[in-house]
Amino acid sequence: MNFVQQLNPLNGVVAVPTTPFGPDGGIDEAGYQRVIRRLVDGGITTITPNGNTGEFYALSPAEAKVVTKLALETVDPSTTVMVGVGHDVASAREAARYAQAQGAAMVMVHQPVHPYMSLEGWIEYHRAIASDVPDLGVVLYVRNEAIPGSVFARLGELCPNVVGVKYAVANPVRFAEVASDAGADRFTWVAGAAELHAPGYFSVGATGFTSGLANVDPATSLGMWHALVEGDQVRVTKLWHRVRPFEEMRAASASGNNVSVVKEALCQLGVCARDIRPPSSLLSASLRAKVTEILESWALGL
Amino acid sequence: MNFVQQLNPLNGVVAVPTTPFGPDGGIDEAGYQRVIRRLVDGGITTITPNGNTGEFYALSPAEAKVVTKLALETVDPSTTVMVGVGHDVASAREAARYAQAQGAAMVMVHQPVHPYMSLEGWIEYHRAIASDVPDLGVVLYVRNEAIPGSVFARLGELCPNVVGVKYAVANPVRFAEVASDAGADRFTWVAGAAELHAPGYFSVGATGFTSGLANVDPATSLGMWHALVEGDQVRVTKLWHRVRPFEEMRAASASGNNVSVVKEALCQLGVCARDIRPPSSLLSASLRAKVTEILESWALGL
Repeated sequence: MNFVQQLNPLNGVVAVPTTPFGPDGGIDEAGYQRVIRRLVDGGITTITPNGNTGEFYALSPAEAKVVTKLALETVDPSTTVMVGVGHDVASAREAARYAQAQGAAMVMVHQPVHPYMSLEGWIEYHRAIASDVPDLGVVLYVRNEAIPGSVFARLGELCPNVVGVKYAVANPVRFAEVASDAGADRFTWVAGAAELHAPGYFSVGATGFTSGLANVDPATSLGMWHALVEGDQVRVTKLWHRVRPFEEMRAASASGNNVSVVKEALCQLGVCARDIRPPSSLLSASLRAKVTEILESWALGL
Repeated sequence: MNFVQQLNPLNGVVAVPTTPFGPDGGIDEAGYQRVIRRLVDGGITTITPNGNTGEFYALSPAEAKVVTKLALETVDPSTTVMVGVGHDVASAREAARYAQAQGAAMVMVHQPVHPYMSLEGWIEYHRAIASDVPDLGVVLYVRNEAIPGSVFARLGELCPNVVGVKYAVANPVRFAEVASDAGADRFTWVAGAAELHAPGYFSVGATGFTSGLANVDPATSLGMWHALVEGDQVRVTKLWHRVRPFEEMRAASASGNNVSVVKEALCQLGVCARDIRPPSSLLSASLRAKVTEILESWALGL
């Protein structure tokens, strides 16, 4: 990894903060700032407000703006803020321009939720958003393995500011194919399925990974990233086993408790309330106890 | 089918109008009214503005309101208008209340797009929306076959106004299981995967089906519904073969051109422009020619 790559904010742990809610059901602004500060104080240098771990699809457009503003107010310029945007093109453009006005350097475009998507339409969706904010870096959040690498390449030709891809498919072979066909050097590739999948992805070209776990234990996420970059397989394996029970709880039942587990841990650590919005829900008592066990095994401030 | 069932607006063809766009890229209001009138004049009595065929996820929240208002202004009270609502709970509630204020009798709740959904959270998502509009009939749009029938039953206990389910899974056996376990008589079951799947669904309890094809050829959709209700298998088969090439074009490539095909046909029939928003896209010249061939084979006003 050369000097330029080290300065790339996608080469690292791209943390996705949770969005705490207060007793009135609205965003707990002080709690959100605590979440952000915990990440930054823990050494994280790139954060994604309004990601899926931030319950983007459970926030109203106005609330997503509040989250954007809060995140940017809480950090200093040494932290890269990459704001999640999505929905229809007009709403995504508006959110991206708002992020820019608040001082964000990058946006992450959520995978289109529209059920009827052609490859040409996929390109146009992202082109329309990225071309509206030419001074921002744009990262694509891709969970659909059917998009061929050639389609990424075409979008890359049209939009110089599309600089990265958060690829979140549980299949490193497909990732390698797509990245190679897209032109692996055209984009920075971020493993989008977090710590358990990061080793497989790094072995075929990813240089960063996204993390929800980092909300709880940033040192472990950063440790894994450094171990991956340094090729320290013994340490990677050790950290992989450390995070496994937590990440498997998040992945169980089609990821139904993905964020609930993180919020439960943050609640037990005294950072913010565990409240979560539908269609997610609170953990059962037995799953809460399991989170306690994991935090104890990690010796995390209990 | 008894008298009460005949009066149920879900026992029939539930048509999902397209949303035409004008030269400025915005909603073509006069064109939208032509689409609605074509359906109603063709005998359709239940319409769903802001459904997927209406490109719900490509509309801004403000545009979705315009569509709601236009649909309700265009029809008289003999047409049941079931407005599609979705996104986060607060946005869905606001859209449902707006629909009610404009005179809608029903709303259809789009499947949650949030990637992290528990069964308890699924119930709470729909309960929160339905309980906010207790005087409206609420229909669930379900594309996820993992929701067990018992979970529908629980929601039905909590919310008397959840009256129907648009079940859109290409598997009539799973549909039969879910409907049976939910209490088949508690809800009206609408085949959500349209004409090609309607026969299989009707054979195991559906009494209505949704249709995008009805935009183009309402008589055929209605003919199939009557043939299904009357058990006229010969006619069902005949109509199934009639619609097959059109519906297969819509289903091809993971439904990428689902709406593009309908809009192309409406354009060729002089109803409205073919324009469509990303992540959908216009048909290629060869696919346009195929639409022409189908319309000619149907002898539809060309």
